[in-house]
Amino acid sequence: MDAWQWSAAEASARMAQGVLSSEVYVRSCLERIAHREGDVQAWAHLDAEAAIAQARARDREPRRSPLHGIPVGLKDVIRTRDLPTTFNSPVYENGDAASPLVFPPNEDAHCAAVLRALGAVILGKTQTLEFACGGRFPPTRNPWDLGRTPGGSSSGSGAAVADGMVPLALGTQTGGSTIRPAAFCGAFGMKPTWGRLPFDGIKSFAPHLDTVGLYGRSVEDLRLLWQAWGLSEPDEDARPVGPARALRLGVCRTPFWDQAEAAAQQAFEGALSRLSAAGVVLVPCELGQEHAAVNTWQDEIMQDGGRSAFRPEMLAAPALLHEEFQRKLGNHLGLTPARMRAALDAVARCRMGFEHRLEGLDGVLTPSAPGVAPLGLHTQGLAVFNRLWTALQVPCVSLPVLWSPEGLPLGLQLVGARYEDGRLLDVAARVATLFDPPRHPWN
Amino acid sequence: MDAWQWSAAEASARMAQGVLSSEVYVRSCLERIAHREGDVQAWAHLDAEAAIAQARARDREPRRSPLHGIPVGLKDVIRTRDLPTTFNSPVYENGDAASPLVFPPNEDAHCAAVLRALGAVILGKTQTLEFACGGRFPPTRNPWDLGRTPGGSSSGSGAAVADGMVPLALGTQTGGSTIRPAAFCGAFGMKPTWGRLPFDGIKSFAPHLDTVGLYGRSVEDLRLLWQAWGLSEPDEDARPVGPARALRLGVCRTPFWDQAEAAAQQAFEGALSRLSAAGVVLVPCELGQEHAAVNTWQDEIMQDGGRSAFRPEMLAAPALLHEEFQRKLGNHLGLTPARMRAALDAVARCRMGFEHRLEGLDGVLTPSAPGVAPLGLHTQGLAVFNRLWTALQVPCVSLPVLWSPEGLPLGLQLVGARYEDGRLLDVAARVATLFDPPRHPWN
Repeated sequence: MDAWQWSAAEASARMAQGVLSSEVYVRSCLERIAHREGDVQAWAHLDAEAAIAQARARDREPRRSPLHGIPVGLKDVIRTRDLPTTFNSPVYENGDAASPLVFPPNEDAHCAAVLRALGAVILGKTQTLEFACGGRFPPTRNPWDLGRTPGGSSSGSGAAVADGMVPLALGTQTGGSTIRPAAFCGAFGMKPTWGRLPFDGIKSFAPHLDTVGLYGRSVEDLRLLWQAWGLSEPDEDARPVGPARALRLGVCRTPFWDQAEAAAQQAFEGALSRLSAAGVVLVPCELGQEHAAVNTWQDEIMQDGGRSAFRPEMLAAPALLHEEFQRKLGNHLGLTPARMRAALDAVARCRMGFEHRLEGLDGVLTPSAPGVAPLGLHTQGLAVFNRLWTALQVPCVSLPVLWSPEGLPLGLQLVGARYEDGRLLDVAARVATLFDPPRHPWN
Repeated sequence: MDAWQWSAAEASARMAQGVLSSEVYVRSCLERIAHREGDVQAWAHLDAEAAIAQARARDREPRRSPLHGIPVGLKDVIRTRDLPTTFNSPVYENGDAASPLVFPPNEDAHCAAVLRALGAVILGKTQTLEFACGGRFPPTRNPWDLGRTPGGSSSGSGAAVADGMVPLALGTQTGGSTIRPAAFCGAFGMKPTWGRLPFDGIKSFAPHLDTVGLYGRSVEDLRLLWQAWGLSEPDEDARPVGPARALRLGVCRTPFWDQAEAAAQQAFEGALSRLSAAGVVLVPCELGQEHAAVNTWQDEIMQDGGRSAFRPEMLAAPALLHEEFQRKLGNHLGLTPARMRAALDAVARCRMGFEHRLEGLDGVLTPSAPGVAPLGLHTQGLAVFNRLWTALQVPCVSLPVLWSPEGLPLGLQLVGARYEDGRLLDVAARVATLFDPPRHPWN
């Protein structure tokens, strides 16, 4: 087994035992990248020598944390002090130093600074849909089938983790941009509670929705990343998660169930049967019928963010800004104050109703995506099973434990109550034990 | 009359007529600063030559916008590509280039980029409470009485605009950090609807609350700044604001009225009499009694943000981080998931109730602050009349039209419904006409 095949948690344990160095692990990941990048095209910026230098420096130091020496990929909307940040936008890549918007890298985003301070090796920047929003697609391909999208907008992070190029990565989610690539690529993904991981230093799109997302190759990997922010909850200990067979989980097919492909519906129902057979108590937990418009409200809230998010680029370099952003800046939906208030308040009521139904449950099961990754690279697939949860600001974890008949990944999504991110990871770890071990594109 | 005495709107009109150059205006502001800065200490970073160079460059160009050539001060939590950004924190000022958190300026925050692209002259960075949050106080003094606080945390922005050093400035508000200095210093201030002006490039504290704030020397000045983001509302035209005598305004003394000093209460009641005599219809518009805890909820939401906001500084330079931030990082309130959900949902219900009462009204009158600026520089004064509105995410404008018996400024605050920022400025302009013209410390 090559080092790159280890999850972050496995590699971290070996490093703690002194039987694996960061340099060996990072070099192995770089070899995997060299072997696969021509096909997968997950990376926007990569500096192999600089990554090896970081690894060597970490190997010379005492361990700072369980992330010490572990390589991480960062979506290229997250600023880094040592690598360019170009958002997959021509505005930032044209090398025109006279533009006030082309800047040499000199500062880490909040999340990058936290990971770096804990000893993580910033391996490189991963491909993204332009501004994590629209416009230009990345060249990234799905590691399971190069003719399919990896999903977006955190395309490179999802594909790189699933393909063994890097064990951990960060993305973002405003609609479905973290969970969708996790589902399509077969990675473990997490969208935490909105607002808990600061968005400083990341290009924003819609402030009510923008969330830092986490990728790993196991629930333990997600926990490694989550714990970097030190946000353990005082009452997590008081309400420990029991064994898998004692879980009580809600089931939410959502108002969008009809949009799921038959294979996805069958896989989801199969998961319910498997969990039920293992002793998990399953409880219906649907959003009320009055909330069938939640994805519409989410879209209005998201598009409203686009009315100001891209204004600096519009003023500084209009010719380089894709017309899709220009439309958003022009308020193409004709959003009014009354409509915005109605959308935000409807979502707030929906959130209260959902969490009320969650009381006494350990989480809610729902599809991660409506099917397998679609064919083609100029699509991201649908986010109908993500946008509602992003609007509700609740934490979500996607487990790569379901598969289509042709062997493509289908995620199983677990959703929890706001601020119970740590507990949701505990629940996800229990649920994962009831399924077969994850498959990998290299097996 | 010296040029520095003109408001931004007056100066902009003169520049449009070709009778005032940016260089003359900026030099005049710099002279005012040279005269007063020893006393007021509003500035953290100022580069007079660079500001004059910007002004000259603007004078050579066609006008890009009404802000063309107008100098603006930016609170020193807002990143700038040409001046340091140090947050009044020892972590960022020690010149230790080996620290990953000390970075040369190379990028504008979103708001700075927008203003610069529209031709504004970035005059300098204004003093702030450490991280706009706690810890170290700035040296800034109240221009009306150097023994008093200017209020915080946007201390330098409020004081500089009120004192004639610069006509426009940006601040931030998470509790009362924009409206409070406006009230204490006698500036016009605005806290827009949460989320409409992107926070990219500004140090965040609490994501549900952090808002870019605006300062000017008239309502027209605030409008100049607000319009920079291009967020006019499609239905503002459909519901135009009538003349002052036809306004219908709510009156909200808030659950915190008892905390207002007698002089502030009397000034507020006097304002109501004046408005009523002018024909304005006044309607009681209190928060329900069930919302008396709104400031407590706001504090919990704010302190929760501090649990992660300062983690990079804590990891990189713990010895330089004030113990107040370390307490926040340690969850000193013992906030639990259930308590956070309860606070957020209570605020959401309060917001819906308040805006329901606002229907048919042009805005709500409420005090800007509980009294005049307190004596001493190691206080910011109370934000009891600000924190609730920040939590509700509604737009607020403070008008410097009320005065204490000893001649110190007392603000009158106007609050509107979310997303009606432009309309609230129209209402504020009408209300301002019913009071005497603003006074200035130099008269």
